[in-house]
Amino acid sequence: MIIQLEKNITEQQFSRLQEKLRAINYKSVKVSTQFSDYIIGVGKKEFDIRAIGTMEGISDIHRVSDAYKLVSRKWKVKQTQIDLGDDVKIGDGAFQIMAGPCSIESEEQIQSTINHLVKNGLRIMRGGVYKPRSSPYSFRGLGIEGLKLWHKYAQEAGLKIITEVMMTEQIDDMIDYVDIFQVGARNAQNFNLLDALGKVDKPVMLKRGISGTIDELLQAAEYIFSNGNERIMLCERGIRSYEKAYRNTLDINAIPILKEKTHLPVIVDPSHGIGVRKFVDSVALAGVMAGADAVIMEVHECPEKAFSDGQQTLDYEQSGTLIERLNKTVAFRKEIGLC
Amino acid sequence: MIIQLEKNITEQQFSRLQEKLRAINYKSVKVSTQFSDYIIGVGKKEFDIRAIGTMEGISDIHRVSDAYKLVSRKWKVKQTQIDLGDDVKIGDGAFQIMAGPCSIESEEQIQSTINHLVKNGLRIMRGGVYKPRSSPYSFRGLGIEGLKLWHKYAQEAGLKIITEVMMTEQIDDMIDYVDIFQVGARNAQNFNLLDALGKVDKPVMLKRGISGTIDELLQAAEYIFSNGNERIMLCERGIRSYEKAYRNTLDINAIPILKEKTHLPVIVDPSHGIGVRKFVDSVALAGVMAGADAVIMEVHECPEKAFSDGQQTLDYEQSGTLIERLNKTVAFRKEIGLC
Amino acid sequence: MIIQLEKNITEQQFSRLQEKLRAINYKSVKVSTQFSDYIIGVGKKEFDIRAIGTMEGISDIHRVSDAYKLVSRKWKVKQTQIDLGDDVKIGDGAFQIMAGPCSIESEEQIQSTINHLVKNGLRIMRGGVYKPRSSPYSFRGLGIEGLKLWHKYAQEAGLKIITEVMMTEQIDDMIDYVDIFQVGARNAQNFNLLDALGKVDKPVMLKRGISGTIDELLQAAEYIFSNGNERIMLCERGIRSYEKAYRNTLDINAIPILKEKTHLPVIVDPSHGIGVRKFVDSVALAGVMAGADAVIMEVHECPEKAFSDGQQTLDYEQSGTLIERLNKTVAFRKEIGLC
Amino acid sequence: MIIQLEKNITEQQFSRLQEKLRAINYKSVKVSTQFSDYIIGVGKKEFDIRAIGTMEGISDIHRVSDAYKLVSRKWKVKQTQIDLGDDVKIGDGAFQIMAGPCSIESEEQIQSTINHLVKNGLRIMRGGVYKPRSSPYSFRGLGIEGLKLWHKYAQEAGLKIITEVMMTEQIDDMIDYVDIFQVGARNAQNFNLLDALGKVDKPVMLKRGISGTIDELLQAAEYIFSNGNERIMLCERGIRSYEKAYRNTLDINAIPILKEKTHLPVIVDPSHGIGVRKFVDSVALAGVMAGADAVIMEVHECPEKAFSDGQQTLDYEQSGTLIERLNKTVAFRKEIGLC
Repeated sequence: MIIQLEKNITEQQFSRLQEKLRAINYKSVKVSTQFSDYIIGVGKKEFDIRAIGTMEGISDIHRVSDAYKLVSRKWKVKQTQIDLGDDVKIGDGAFQIMAGPCSIESEEQIQSTINHLVKNGLRIMRGGVYKPRSSPYSFRGLGIEGLKLWHKYAQEAGLKIITEVMMTEQIDDMIDYVDIFQVGARNAQNFNLLDALGKVDKPVMLKRGISGTIDELLQAAEYIFSNGNERIMLCERGIRSYEKAYRNTLDINAIPILKEKTHLPVIVDPSHGIGVRKFVDSVALAGVMAGADAVIMEVHECPEKAFSDGQQTLDYEQSGTLIERLNKTVAFRKEIGLC
Repeated sequence: MIIQLEKNITEQQFSRLQEKLRAINYKSVKVSTQFSDYIIGVGKKEFDIRAIGTMEGISDIHRVSDAYKLVSRKWKVKQTQIDLGDDVKIGDGAFQIMAGPCSIESEEQIQSTINHLVKNGLRIMRGGVYKPRSSPYSFRGLGIEGLKLWHKYAQEAGLKIITEVMMTEQIDDMIDYVDIFQVGARNAQNFNLLDALGKVDKPVMLKRGISGTIDELLQAAEYIFSNGNERIMLCERGIRSYEKAYRNTLDINAIPILKEKTHLPVIVDPSHGIGVRKFVDSVALAGVMAGADAVIMEVHECPEKAFSDGQQTLDYEQSGTLIERLNKTVAFRKEIGLC
Repeated sequence: MIIQLEKNITEQQFSRLQEKLRAINYKSVKVSTQFSDYIIGVGKKEFDIRAIGTMEGISDIHRVSDAYKLVSRKWKVKQTQIDLGDDVKIGDGAFQIMAGPCSIESEEQIQSTINHLVKNGLRIMRGGVYKPRSSPYSFRGLGIEGLKLWHKYAQEAGLKIITEVMMTEQIDDMIDYVDIFQVGARNAQNFNLLDALGKVDKPVMLKRGISGTIDELLQAAEYIFSNGNERIMLCERGIRSYEKAYRNTLDINAIPILKEKTHLPVIVDPSHGIGVRKFVDSVALAGVMAGADAVIMEVHECPEKAFSDGQQTLDYEQSGTLIERLNKTVAFRKEIGLC
Repeated sequence: MIIQLEKNITEQQFSRLQEKLRAINYKSVKVSTQFSDYIIGVGKKEFDIRAIGTMEGISDIHRVSDAYKLVSRKWKVKQTQIDLGDDVKIGDGAFQIMAGPCSIESEEQIQSTINHLVKNGLRIMRGGVYKPRSSPYSFRGLGIEGLKLWHKYAQEAGLKIITEVMMTEQIDDMIDYVDIFQVGARNAQNFNLLDALGKVDKPVMLKRGISGTIDELLQAAEYIFSNGNERIMLCERGIRSYEKAYRNTLDINAIPILKEKTHLPVIVDPSHGIGVRKFVDSVALAGVMAGADAVIMEVHECPEKAFSDGQQTLDYEQSGTLIERLNKTVAFRKEIGLC
C-alpha cells in the first residue's frame, strides 16, 4: 500500500495516520524523495483503503500487492521521464542512444568518441572508469582521474555522462562528474550500494543481474526509490543461459513486460545482450521495436584495439548506420500506432 | 566437405571420386535430394579441395567445418526460398504470416479462422490435429479426420496448411492433406522422425528444442536434408530459462545468428516465445525486425474458450492489427536498407 | 482421483460408478495394467470420496491433486519393486548397478564387458544398439543384429539387458531380446513412444529430458502407466545448465524429491550426469547416498577407443573399485538408518 | 606463471627478476600474503621457466595457464587447511559442520542455538547480522550490536563465528567479533569487497554466485589471495536453473571439480542448495560423499518462527540426527579409501 502525503501534512495528521496503520497491524515505512513523501504500508489484513484515503493530509492512496511498490505501475500509471537537463530526456516518449567505449582509455580516445557522437546527434556518452573484471590481473580502469578528464571534454561538447559506480565510497568523488550513475550486472543485488544511490539526487541506470529475474530487478529499483531517489532507469543486458553461440541471451520478452509492470524507463543494451559485433544492430533494432526507451551500446574507433569488450563493440561506420536506423525505427513505431 | 555431383555423372567418374576419398581416409555419404546429388565427406586430413573440384562429374566442392554441412551457409550463400505453389513463398525476401488455433477443434472453428485469415490476406493456416500434451489425460487432438475436414475448407479458400506430425507412422496418412509438416519442440531430436521426413517431398518446419542449442537445431535440419529433402525451415519458439515471469524466453539472438549460419528460412513463433497474449505483438514485431522470414502465431475467435494455449492466443482484433503492423514492418526494414 | 476396481467388478457395478462420475461432472479414463484395473477421474468439484469408496466393486479410492496420478506416492505409499526374474530386483530396498558401454560395438567387446560384469557380481548390462546422435554422419549403432548377438551372450552369462528403444516400430523386433526398455533423454516427451511402451509387459527406464522438469518426468511415466504398464523406473541423468566445466549438471536434488513424489524406483546416471571420467565415482557415490535405487554407468575395456562417450566412460579398474564402494555405501546407508 | 620469492630476496635480485619479465613482455603483479611473497606473471610468450627458476632470490616457479593462478592446484598440489585456533581446522582431512540460524534474532535464540551446537560437538556457529534481502521492506538483521552480543556468548562456549559481511565499511567494525567472514552469493563478484577482504588476516568463505560459474568462483578467490589473504574457503550453495520443484539446484558436480582445480577447502550448503527442509539431509550427505570438507547449514529451535529462510531450516532434532550421520559418513569415506 502506498500512501502519498500532502506536502503540508501536519504532525498531528501524520500521527493519526500512523495510529490507523498500527490499528490494522501494518508495518509502515516513511519514504521521502526529491518529489514527494510517502508511507509504504506492508501488512496482510484486507481493509477499505478509502478509510485512509479520506483522512486529512493524505494526497492519494493505492493498493499494490507486488513485492515492489513505488516502482510499480499499479500505483503510477504515467511513465516516468528522466530529465537530464539541456533538453536531454529519457522515457515517456523521449528516446536516447547512449554510446561510447567499454573503458575510457585515453584523452585521444575520449575526443575521438565525442566527435563521433556529436556528428551523429547523440547527447549521452557511456564509458567505464571503474571496471569490474573477472580476473584481478585485468585492466581495471583509469579511475577518478579518467572521469575528470572525460567530464571536461564531455561538458565542452554538451554531452551527458553515464558511467558505472562500483562501491559507495566512490559516489562522493564521482558525483560532480556524472550525469547518470550506472549499477552493473554484478552489483544488481549489492543492496548497500543501492541504498546509497537512493540518497543521491542523480539518475541511476540499474542493470539486470547476470541471471537476475525481472522481479529482482524491480525490487532492486525499489531499494533506490525507497531511499529517496525516484530517477531510475532499468536496463536489459542479456541473461545467462545454456546457449554457447553468443555471450548472453538478450531477453527481449523482458522489455514489454517491464514496460507493463513499472513506470520507469527501460533501456536495452544490445552489445552485452548478444556480445557479437556483427549482430548488435539486429538486436538493437529488435529491442527498440519491442518498446525500449533508449539504447546503450559500445562504440570504439578501432574495436580490435579496445582494452575490453572489443568483440562486441561497433566501429564508427557501423555505429553511424545503426544510429540512423534506430532513429527511423522510433519514428516508424509511432507511425504504426505503438507507444 | 560437400561435393555437388553433376546430374549426368557416370559410374566410372563416381568410382574415381570414391577412390580419391578413400585415399585421403574420408568417410563419404551420398545424399540425393529433390534438387541435386551430393557426397558429404567427413575426415580430418587437410588437403587441397581443387584436386577433387576439377575432377570430371563434379559440379562444385566446398569445405564446411561445421558439424552440419548441407544446411550451412558456408556452402550455399544464397538464401533458400520455399515455394508452396500458388505464389506462396517463404524466405529470400518472401515474407509470410502463418496463423491459426493451437488445436483444430471443430468445423465451425475451422471456417471462422479461415474467414479471418482470408480477410487479412494470409495464405497459410496453422493448427494442430495431433497434440503433444504433458499429461495423458489432456485433449490430444482430432487426428486425421480433423485434418481431412480442415483440408477441404482450406483448399476451397486457397490456404496452405501447416500442422505437426508426431511419429513416422502418421506421415503417409497426412501427406495428401498437408503443405508443411511441422516438427514440434519435443521432437526436435527425434532422429527417426527427422530421417523419415527427409524422404518426403513436402516442406518441413523444424522447431528448436525446449532447450535446444542453435547447433543442435542445425544438425537436426541436416538429418532431413541428408535424407533427401532440401525444403526445410527453422523456427525459434523460445527456450527454457530460469525466468518465471513468462512461459518461454524468446531467443531473439538466435534469429540473426541462424540467418548467418544457414541458408534456410527462419521463422519466429511469438506465441510460444513469450506465452502471454498481451505481449505477443511486441515480440512478433521484434522478431521480424531482427530478420525473421515468417511469423507463426496462434489465433482463435475466442481465446478464453480454446482447447489449449488460450493464454497466449490472440483474438481476431489483436491478430488483425498485428498482421497489418507486421506487413508494414517488413516494408520498413527494406526501406532502411536491411535485407 | 484414482479408483481401484475389484478384479471381479460386474458390469452393473461399473455402470453405476460411471453414472456417479458423470453426475459430478468428472471425466473418467479406464486404465488396465498387468496388475490391476483403475478409473482415473479428472474434475474440479470437491466431494466426499467415501461416497464412491463404499460402492460395490470398488477396492480403493484416493484423491490425487498432482497432474500425474498413478505414479504418485499420494496414492501408493509403498515403493514399487521391479522384478526382472532370476532374483534380479530393483527398488524398495533392492539395489542394482547396470554397467556397460555406450554403444555395443563388436562380439569381442560384448564378451569382454560381460566378463567384467560377472567378475564384479553385476546382473544387468547396459549398451546401445540404436544410438541417437546429434549428427547424421555419426555412428548410429549396430541395430537389431547387434542386439541379438548381445542377447545370446548375456543370456549365457545370466545377465539382464537394458537398451534404448527410439521408435515404436522397433519395439516388436526388440522385445524378445530386452529385459528393460530404455527411453532416452531426447525422447522423454515422445508421447507416442511412451504410449506404445505402456502396452508392453516389459519394464521401462525413463530418462529425464535434456532440460526436463521433475513434473514432466512424472507425467511421462504417467503416460506409460496409464497405457497399462506399471513397471517403470525413472533416471536422473543431469540437466542442461549454463555451467561449462562439465557436460551436464547432475541434479542431485531430484533424487530425494522423486523418491518423495513417486513410488517408482529412481536411478542415477553419473556418466552422463557429469560427463567427465575422473569425477564419475564421486557423483555416483553421492547419488546413492542421496537415495538412488540403482546406478547406470558406462564402462569400456578401453574408453579412449570407444565409438561414443569415451570421455565419460570408466575403464575396468575404475569400474571395479567403484562397484565395491557403491555396494559398501548401500550397506552403510542402512547402518545409519536411511531407507 | 607464479614465482614464489624467498623471504630474504634482495632488492637487486628483485630488480633482476623484473627486468627478466619485462624482457619477455610479461606483465607482473607482486602479491604479499600472510605466508609468502609472489610475483604473478601474465603474458603470452612461451619460454623455459627454468631460466627464472634458477635465479637467486626465487624459491619456486610454476606455469599456470588458468585465468586464476594462486588458487590453482596446478601450482599448489597440497590441500590448504584453515586453522581457526583452539584446534578448529577445515580442509586437508579436517571436517567441520557449521550450523546456526539464517538470522541472529535475539539473546535467547543465540543461547538456545549455542546449547544445541555444543551438545552435538560442533565448533563453528553461523548466523546473519547483516542480511541481504530482495525487498527493502524485509528484516535486514540486528547489525553490529547483534554481532557483539553473539560474540560474547560464542566465546564463552568456545564456538567460532562465521557471518556475512556485505560492504567494505563493515569490515573494521566486525573484525574483532568474527572468525570467518562470509561473502554471500549476491556479492560473489563484488570485486571491491573481495579486494578489501584480501587485506585482512581472517579467513573468508566465498559463496558461489547465484548463477556463477566454477571459473568465476575461482577468479573471485584469486582476488582475495592476490590482495594478500591466503585463507579462503569456497562454498557450493546451489545454482539457479529452470527447475521449480525446489529453490536452487545444488551443483554436486562442482564439489569434485573444485577439489581438483583448487587447493582451497570446499564447503557444501545443503540448506540453500535445495531449500526444502525435509530434503536437506539427503543432499548434505551427498555433498560430503562427493568430497566436501565442511557443511554449512541452517538450524533453528523453531523453524516456523524464524525471521527468514524458515522453510529450509532444520529443527534441533533433525539437526542432531544429521550431524551424527555426517560424522559417520566422513569416517566411512576414509574407510573405503576416499580422501
